[in-house]
Amino acid sequence: MNEKPIARRPFLQTAIGAGLATSIAIGQERADTKNGKKLGWAIVGLSRLSENRIGPAFLKTKNARLAGIVTGTPEKAKIWQKKYDVPDSGVYNYDDFDKIFENPEIDVVYIVLPNSMHREFTVRAAKAGKHVYVEKPMATNSEECREMIQACEKARVQLGVAYRLQFEPHHMEMMRFAKESVFGDVRHLDAGFCFKMRDDTGWRLKKDLGGGALLDVGVYIIQAARYIFGEEPVTVSALETKTDLEKFAEVDETTTWTMQFPSGKTANLISSFNLGGYNRMTVFADKGRFGMEPCFGTRGQKGWTSNPDVPLEFPQTDHFEIQIDLFSQAILDGKDWMVDGREGLRDHLVMDAIFKSVASSKAESVGEV
Amino acid sequence: MNEKPIARRPFLQTAIGAGLATSIAIGQERADTKNGKKLGWAIVGLSRLSENRIGPAFLKTKNARLAGIVTGTPEKAKIWQKKYDVPDSGVYNYDDFDKIFENPEIDVVYIVLPNSMHREFTVRAAKAGKHVYVEKPMATNSEECREMIQACEKARVQLGVAYRLQFEPHHMEMMRFAKESVFGDVRHLDAGFCFKMRDDTGWRLKKDLGGGALLDVGVYIIQAARYIFGEEPVTVSALETKTDLEKFAEVDETTTWTMQFPSGKTANLISSFNLGGYNRMTVFADKGRFGMEPCFGTRGQKGWTSNPDVPLEFPQTDHFEIQIDLFSQAILDGKDWMVDGREGLRDHLVMDAIFKSVASSKAESVGEV
Repeated sequence: MNEKPIARRPFLQTAIGAGLATSIAIGQERADTKNGKKLGWAIVGLSRLSENRIGPAFLKTKNARLAGIVTGTPEKAKIWQKKYDVPDSGVYNYDDFDKIFENPEIDVVYIVLPNSMHREFTVRAAKAGKHVYVEKPMATNSEECREMIQACEKARVQLGVAYRLQFEPHHMEMMRFAKESVFGDVRHLDAGFCFKMRDDTGWRLKKDLGGGALLDVGVYIIQAARYIFGEEPVTVSALETKTDLEKFAEVDETTTWTMQFPSGKTANLISSFNLGGYNRMTVFADKGRFGMEPCFGTRGQKGWTSNPDVPLEFPQTDHFEIQIDLFSQAILDGKDWMVDGREGLRDHLVMDAIFKSVASSKAESVGEV
Repeated sequence: MNEKPIARRPFLQTAIGAGLATSIAIGQERADTKNGKKLGWAIVGLSRLSENRIGPAFLKTKNARLAGIVTGTPEKAKIWQKKYDVPDSGVYNYDDFDKIFENPEIDVVYIVLPNSMHREFTVRAAKAGKHVYVEKPMATNSEECREMIQACEKARVQLGVAYRLQFEPHHMEMMRFAKESVFGDVRHLDAGFCFKMRDDTGWRLKKDLGGGALLDVGVYIIQAARYIFGEEPVTVSALETKTDLEKFAEVDETTTWTMQFPSGKTANLISSFNLGGYNRMTVFADKGRFGMEPCFGTRGQKGWTSNPDVPLEFPQTDHFEIQIDLFSQAILDGKDWMVDGREGLRDHLVMDAIFKSVASSKAESVGEV
């Protein structure tokens, strides 16, 4: 399937997700699923995120079903096969992964590996003719993103980045507040996503696996600043702070930075692996304020605004169910997916500039797509 | 009076105001006022702040009375004389101001002039043998502060900076939260003080009068970061953003910056003359959060914390009444005032580094006292 070439329309390449996201009614019945067909997905990497969030989402998705798993741990495969009814023919390890091209039951590969492996498995999945859905951050730097985009374009498969919050109703409503100037023109935002990492040994503390707080949690707040403002930042100025030199020997612990946008909007941001309880965003507009706390996690979003008549309250959603269904829908409809590799690339261009600013102690320009 | 030499104790020169402020019970009767004597104060500059806040405070102060005014506008003098019962002998203009040394009724001179004039009038007041209380910001840069400190030391008069929030009960309680780790160790804060300047012609838009948002409102959030953290920042990285090139041709409109402190604490900050509704501070600690909004104005402080059992709620106070009484009390008691010229100097060292960072596009170190 999916021989249909992907006609990339120019406007999609510069649009921010807001446009797409606000046009999607959450929970809407998707009657046009082709003949009731569900796309077959394979998860690469049976991490805790896969176990707790992504796997369970497939029990609810309307347009997708779990048809394969890729893991280096045979015991895990057995548990997953039983729980999700995955046939032996859908089980791969990292070595024989490329044989997935022979499996007609698998349409999409969802990469949930350590960040440093996203590039390799995206390229291999594309070569196998599969659409790719990749966890955030898309990669570890913008060069890897460009290679991934090229590989998927060449293979004529779609590439989506798992920016689940673009389809979370509080975030979507904040995009609308900003776009429609509901509280006047938005001017500034403060945001941070930080937590206190208890684990002393995980891959997120290893440089060569793409660890560090900026890539892991900072990416969410960069995304949010971009989709709320509907603009691309032009300049960043960042400072890195390390208090636990042993634990965070290889990766960034806490980074604070400020960003400038072309219209004059500004953002002050923080990401950290060593600060509990900063998981919020506040947007300052000319006639009011709005925000969320908690803001960026996989559940528990809670919003507020400065105007009691304009609440920011929505029911809890399953972010994974929704993004998996929507990406599947786009493929089934033969439509370009907007939260694509270029969206990921844009965030990595910002993160590249932040790392550069930390290293140079200078303000740095954000590169162009 | 005040021949008593000021013995500067070393610990005072490095202490942050928190120590003093938390030891003061607001509204406490000061029974030890010498023989019921109130110090005589003269206000230099009958600005709107003087009219609306400082003058009226003297109708309530226990240790101070308004004994003089210095103004270039005779009509204003008449109104003030009538309202505050100021004798003709207590009225000066900017030219004959130095004759104030002959007036035994005036003990303290309160300078409420445009920022660029603080240095000159502090030096002149000190030479006249009067204690000096100077509005914030203390001056326009750290060099002026040093000159002011020297002049007052040489004249053996006290020099206080009008940091009214160090005696505001919500701010004092936040200092206590931080100092006593009530919510765990404090780690980061976001703060901003911004407003939309309606006036197109005032002195705060003129460079040679010491205008600009950083000096006018940014100073409050630098102060707050310093007294909440109880540390001096070591590095700042700042970006300036200008959207109205005509109105803000001479001065800074919006500045965003991030600061590092020796212990690893961080702060993200913004000051602006062109953004309404950012007047808040949020402090992130290891086991909770606390903050205020509004935070920095002359009234209306409102606090919150992440723990409903530890509220941050106090009655409204008159910031000017309290600071005037406390400074007077220190003088009457012959005690050094801790919110002194060095406190002002420290904030200006930070602001100097911010201006330097904006100009150089580099992170800059904060100078030492």
